Amino acid sequence: MAGNSFGTVFRFTTWGESHGPAIGCVVDGVPPRLELAEGDIQHWLDRRRPGQSRFATQRRESDRVRILSGVFDGRTTGTPISLLIENEDARSRDYEQIKDRFRPGHADFTYWKKYGIRDHRGGGRSSARETASRVAAGAVARKILGDAVTIRGALVQIGPHRIDRARWDWDAVDDNPFWSPDRQSVQVWEGFLDEVRKRGSSAGAVIEIVASGVPAGLGDPIYDKLDADLAKAMMSINAVKGVEIGAGFAAAELSGEDNADEMRMEGGRVAFLSNNAGGILGGIATGQDIVVRFAVKPTSSILTPRRSVDIHGNEVEVSTKGRHDPCVGIRAVPVGEAMMAIVLADHLLRHRALCG
Amino acid sequence: MAGNSFGTVFRFTTWGESHGPAIGCVVDGVPPRLELAEGDIQHWLDRRRPGQSRFATQRRESDRVRILSGVFDGRTTGTPISLLIENEDARSRDYEQIKDRFRPGHADFTYWKKYGIRDHRGGGRSSARETASRVAAGAVARKILGDAVTIRGALVQIGPHRIDRARWDWDAVDDNPFWSPDRQSVQVWEGFLDEVRKRGSSAGAVIEIVASGVPAGLGDPIYDKLDADLAKAMMSINAVKGVEIGAGFAAAELSGEDNADEMRMEGGRVAFLSNNAGGILGGIATGQDIVVRFAVKPTSSILTPRRSVDIHGNEVEVSTKGRHDPCVGIRAVPVGEAMMAIVLADHLLRHRALCG
Amino acid sequence: MAGNSFGTVFRFTTWGESHGPAIGCVVDGVPPRLELAEGDIQHWLDRRRPGQSRFATQRRESDRVRILSGVFDGRTTGTPISLLIENEDARSRDYEQIKDRFRPGHADFTYWKKYGIRDHRGGGRSSARETASRVAAGAVARKILGDAVTIRGALVQIGPHRIDRARWDWDAVDDNPFWSPDRQSVQVWEGFLDEVRKRGSSAGAVIEIVASGVPAGLGDPIYDKLDADLAKAMMSINAVKGVEIGAGFAAAELSGEDNADEMRMEGGRVAFLSNNAGGILGGIATGQDIVVRFAVKPTSSILTPRRSVDIHGNEVEVSTKGRHDPCVGIRAVPVGEAMMAIVLADHLLRHRALCG
Amino acid sequence: MAGNSFGTVFRFTTWGESHGPAIGCVVDGVPPRLELAEGDIQHWLDRRRPGQSRFATQRRESDRVRILSGVFDGRTTGTPISLLIENEDARSRDYEQIKDRFRPGHADFTYWKKYGIRDHRGGGRSSARETASRVAAGAVARKILGDAVTIRGALVQIGPHRIDRARWDWDAVDDNPFWSPDRQSVQVWEGFLDEVRKRGSSAGAVIEIVASGVPAGLGDPIYDKLDADLAKAMMSINAVKGVEIGAGFAAAELSGEDNADEMRMEGGRVAFLSNNAGGILGGIATGQDIVVRFAVKPTSSILTPRRSVDIHGNEVEVSTKGRHDPCVGIRAVPVGEAMMAIVLADHLLRHRALCG
Repeated sequence: MAGNSFGTVFRFTTWGESHGPAIGCVVDGVPPRLELAEGDIQHWLDRRRPGQSRFATQRRESDRVRILSGVFDGRTTGTPISLLIENEDARSRDYEQIKDRFRPGHADFTYWKKYGIRDHRGGGRSSARETASRVAAGAVARKILGDAVTIRGALVQIGPHRIDRARWDWDAVDDNPFWSPDRQSVQVWEGFLDEVRKRGSSAGAVIEIVASGVPAGLGDPIYDKLDADLAKAMMSINAVKGVEIGAGFAAAELSGEDNADEMRMEGGRVAFLSNNAGGILGGIATGQDIVVRFAVKPTSSILTPRRSVDIHGNEVEVSTKGRHDPCVGIRAVPVGEAMMAIVLADHLLRHRALCG
Repeated sequence: MAGNSFGTVFRFTTWGESHGPAIGCVVDGVPPRLELAEGDIQHWLDRRRPGQSRFATQRRESDRVRILSGVFDGRTTGTPISLLIENEDARSRDYEQIKDRFRPGHADFTYWKKYGIRDHRGGGRSSARETASRVAAGAVARKILGDAVTIRGALVQIGPHRIDRARWDWDAVDDNPFWSPDRQSVQVWEGFLDEVRKRGSSAGAVIEIVASGVPAGLGDPIYDKLDADLAKAMMSINAVKGVEIGAGFAAAELSGEDNADEMRMEGGRVAFLSNNAGGILGGIATGQDIVVRFAVKPTSSILTPRRSVDIHGNEVEVSTKGRHDPCVGIRAVPVGEAMMAIVLADHLLRHRALCG
Repeated sequence: MAGNSFGTVFRFTTWGESHGPAIGCVVDGVPPRLELAEGDIQHWLDRRRPGQSRFATQRRESDRVRILSGVFDGRTTGTPISLLIENEDARSRDYEQIKDRFRPGHADFTYWKKYGIRDHRGGGRSSARETASRVAAGAVARKILGDAVTIRGALVQIGPHRIDRARWDWDAVDDNPFWSPDRQSVQVWEGFLDEVRKRGSSAGAVIEIVASGVPAGLGDPIYDKLDADLAKAMMSINAVKGVEIGAGFAAAELSGEDNADEMRMEGGRVAFLSNNAGGILGGIATGQDIVVRFAVKPTSSILTPRRSVDIHGNEVEVSTKGRHDPCVGIRAVPVGEAMMAIVLADHLLRHRALCG
Repeated sequence: MAGNSFGTVFRFTTWGESHGPAIGCVVDGVPPRLELAEGDIQHWLDRRRPGQSRFATQRRESDRVRILSGVFDGRTTGTPISLLIENEDARSRDYEQIKDRFRPGHADFTYWKKYGIRDHRGGGRSSARETASRVAAGAVARKILGDAVTIRGALVQIGPHRIDRARWDWDAVDDNPFWSPDRQSVQVWEGFLDEVRKRGSSAGAVIEIVASGVPAGLGDPIYDKLDADLAKAMMSINAVKGVEIGAGFAAAELSGEDNADEMRMEGGRVAFLSNNAGGILGGIATGQDIVVRFAVKPTSSILTPRRSVDIHGNEVEVSTKGRHDPCVGIRAVPVGEAMMAIVLADHLLRHRALCG
């Protein structure tokens, strides 16, 4: 109810602030006897970790995860898994200057209005640092999904620069600091982002997450449709302003006959001739790839001074000097993958409950 | 868990199939002593009712709602409100032909895969008829919000034809069968949709819902962000494929300084100089207008024959002869308004619980 | 959250007041393809129905249940099952006299304090009439449990008169108006209750519910222990003031070695040599009979005048003239059975979700 | 859903095993701006701490709690509060002998049946050590309730020896190692328990928890009645086998006129002439003292050998040599107090949500 948990059968709760002693999460509803070691989680955390290229925040966090419970002799026991990541490189003094000031476009103002108190250091609870817990929980979710399901994410747009989908190559994604599936976009984006940083500005991005091998039948109409839960999952990521499934907003421009994915039989199984549905019909998985895209707004903490107010009602100018991602969308790729894994793992267990 | 409920404190559960004896919902978590009569609900149901123009299904439903509980002497008692709407004009024979066949783009296939049984008549539970219950629940939600909050919806795009936002006029919305805020779009859309119908096709649409007067502070970070819950709410509406808040996907193309809404003081209160955030920062309402847009795909039940399969694994052609909306997005406007009211009412009560 | 729903995967929501047009419930989370007809539910409702002996309220209700959704061709579809029972014999004028007065021991006072409004007719929402919905939902729950699980209830005490457990005979239970497993208690109870009624008084009771065939492993420690959920389920029944499992309060007097149920192997399976645990250890079913007992206080609506106050703060005397059960505990037997079925069905599906 | 969380608005999730590195909990739904320091929590943990008398386990745990999040400048921020307690004195070798054997009356057998894997060391997750997290969460709950509500617990029975209620003195409770309100019972219990320990046996107990100052109106009928939630809360404590409210099981023997608490006006306020209801009518608080009692069975880990089986299906004898409480009910007193605080805090916030 207070909003720090996600999922129903597979359910995790995150806690922690950017500049507190640690962050972490408790993952509940994990089936027993799954192999799980800290390394399995660390693998995914390392993908999200800051400080790995000049296009991400220079905050140095090793993001070492510890499993405090729920695993015995290398296997899950069915009891809650408590995961803890210590904060190491919190430089709270960077934030003294904005202690009483609201960064435009940031949660500073709304946390103040809601709670009447806020931990201003590094954004406190509203910091993107919280997403490390999502990635950790996502690693556990992948264990539930098993090897049959593959989840991959890619950046398909930075600022106004989109990839050419004809050049899509999943193998390219791990080769560049942007998770771009289009190698030719890399140089463009590098130049663009260097210029953005120099200007003291920031840029937005669009991320695409694809899950393959999802069995038909997952998803619970009416209100817990698979796409509704994915929309919530992605929109809950910091700075996300839009989510679409399959053809998404473009579907509004298609004709009924172009949009509906036709079906044929192939080798005794139903085969779809297109995937405008993004793998979901009526809120339930069709068995095709699940395709979700989401838009991330430009980082709101920027060097360029902006007009704002402070907590006393004075008009001020705010310019943020902390260490920030010029394009926070880049590091949202592993977070989006994690949220996809989480939603699918939850619906896998839900489906098992209802339909056996 | 089985997906037929929405909300936390304010929570409703819908039930019923398109061709069963009735549909309805139970609305729980309604504060006591609010004035509520059947007419208050009927008012909003009448806006969604089919058969009101040639651009909506010709199914004739009076959609008369009955309050069966939870109201005493014209006021809510704090106990669950049971609402019932009888189905009157169900012509099940229209559906005999698709009893064993899956309409491409429809939930027919996935319900079959999930449940191994389905009420094929009129789409059963997956029918857009279910949205009448949402509108009814939304009418109750509006009573909780009171007069200070105004919720309005409009159609901003049909097929490839968008309105001119410079001509936006809320007064126009109730003057035309499309809920268009741009009077000049009406003729264009009429011509376009007549042609679509003639072709045995269908069209998609984009809807925008705006809530004014929402107090700053509503919304529960991290996972129950106000925008995350709105995304889920809108994506759960039949045929929706995308949701965005404020600038939405366009935010990805803005620079950090253009995107962040600057703040000044005006008459002792904080005033924002723009609203790219769509009234939500960090998942919490800023006090500005809440702005949500969602895309509706073209109706999948069309006359034009499409390739498909049947439940026995035979390849077939499907053409749907029932009475269908050529552009189901039109009637999604009152449904989107209702879902906005529901999310806001729930978060109003949630906020009261946590923050007093 | 507003308290009218019970269960997690198998979850139902009840609505309706004693003197409104109808009562009913929506049962969600029912697996698809189970055989279900109105008669299956009516069977159990008829057991709870008032007016069947002189020891129950003389209100005449046929308690005819209608299935409005969720069943197609005689089988569940996996969608919500809406059940409706019309109120037929509501004599609201009986309650005019207590419109402004609080019956001692009744929820009149607390509903007024909580909501500031109440439907005084027949107790409104607080009426035991609500339990018909529980019995209906319980009938659906039994379909999920299947034939392997047997649930039986019995009355083991009325007022100060207890059965002799040495004479326990399940076959006797359906032979007498008290659901007594001890035939010799029947005459004693008849005499006692006739005298109680004559005095304008009422009596309490203790009910025992036993579930056989429950597979070991059901139940979710720590907070959703099977016994914790049973305690909540039984305590939520009107007028219940105590719940115990197995040896219950008597366990406090046993020594550690007498209390712990020893185990041996029998035909390759674990056999317990006693059942002080009531079939539950650590919140999880052992495979033995689940044994729950609960105490029902005497009906608070009695003819004997009692001192009370009214809503205006005047001191008054209250004597209730409506048609009431002299021992409401008798009709609690089928209700307790239903709640047992509901808790077990929910945990069966929950166990399937987590443990496969 | 997996059972490690409790509460709705005020909601906490516990994690950790008896012999893992630490235990702890995440407390969510705490209103902002409440004063909270580690000392406030430590105070209550120290009451529950083992090793304080010869009648409790000799395991030495300092039970030092750390607040890892949710508190800033000595006040709650409205974000989740993560509490961590390290395990210090875990002697896992004590448990080697029961690695493959089921202690009769213990959760060993059922965890094995449910999960197919278990952390046998010290009972793993089923250990009473988990209750330290409840006490920590309860300390936070008390902050929400404020000073107007007083919660006190006492032991009223050990084995067959009950206190004399006529000698009840709340001041006595903190003077003796049993939390007895009857000073004369202390010597009796000491003698009894010394003899029980010498015999290698254990004893049960009955605990009474009383909350004063609870405002009328708390509690949500029908299924989340205040007494139903209290029954669940208490029954979820390790080894509890029975729960009763007010007169409890004894109410079954009372006449209707004796049981119903009469009302008079006193100084302009409603005054009850008795409290058989235990402060709850229709699931809602009356404003009187809330009175709950629960029975704790004798510790199942005892030195006396008992017949059992092992995981391979062999018949064995089990005698437990670890350090165990001879009467685990004693340390259940602070746990029961904590659960009372938790239920009341949750219902306080729930009531605020629904009724303002």
